[in-house]
Amino acid sequence: MLKWISFCLLLIATANANALDRDQAEKAVEVREAVMTITGWNIVPAAGMVKEKIPYDAREFQIHAERLNFAMSMVADAFKTDTRGFGLKTEALDKVWEDNEEFLRLTKEAVDASAALAAAAANGNFEEVKGPFMEMGKACKACHDDFREED
Amino acid sequence: MLKWISFCLLLIATANANALDRDQAEKAVEVREAVMTITGWNIVPAAGMVKEKIPYDAREFQIHAERLNFAMSMVADAFKTDTRGFGLKTEALDKVWEDNEEFLRLTKEAVDASAALAAAAANGNFEEVKGPFMEMGKACKACHDDFREED
Repeated sequence: MLKWISFCLLLIATANANALDRDQAEKAVEVREAVMTITGWNIVPAAGMVKEKIPYDAREFQIHAERLNFAMSMVADAFKTDTRGFGLKTEALDKVWEDNEEFLRLTKEAVDASAALAAAAANGNFEEVKGPFMEMGKACKACHDDFREED
Repeated sequence: MLKWISFCLLLIATANANALDRDQAEKAVEVREAVMTITGWNIVPAAGMVKEKIPYDAREFQIHAERLNFAMSMVADAFKTDTRGFGLKTEALDKVWEDNEEFLRLTKEAVDASAALAAAAANGNFEEVKGPFMEMGKACKACHDDFREED
């Protein structure tokens, strides 16, 4: 009888632990998606200016560059929670946590590239921001190629 | 006959215009939710430290305060797109755009409160961050009370 009680208590404890973990995992997915949403919100108009599809506005471009830099600075923390095994809808591949060292290396490159872009944008010269913007794009792609589900 | 062709062309044009606007409206909701997700992600552990439910870590607290300040600096822009009339799932009340002047005034107060919190957090002294954190909370509440759907 005591064995059964212990077993039931264990089941309840495990169920609670799993419920909590799943909730945390879902929240973690929301956070990293939020970081990427902020990134997209700012990289799209910045790209439009670099590609001369919309007029270059030095002040606007600088704001976008600063926000990109800030978003990049949150990526490593945002992906800290390992959400493998919950069957959650996410574009993050398991490799993020399987090869976390490489993921963090590429994250760091994106942080550096976005910092260089923000520094160039502070000068306000259109010709000066093109190169750093392309480097930033390359840093995004390098990480997406290996760690994000293909569209 | 020509009338019908014109009418159909008008219908198609209107449908396209609406499709585009709805897509933009949905993206705008995503962006403001992302800003609030980043806010929650950082305010929860900061509140835990202020309320002494988790140990105070000066460096961690500072990172949270800086992120809160950055998130607050994006609120006005994130709520720029008027999404009324699309029937989208959102906690933002129509009043955000009906009384935009007051909304922006409260937004500015939250930016200022978060800047004061970040400045206090930079000093690293636990006693110094409590007051600014409570002020930050009040600024959040002041805006939520009037402009966010009640839970």
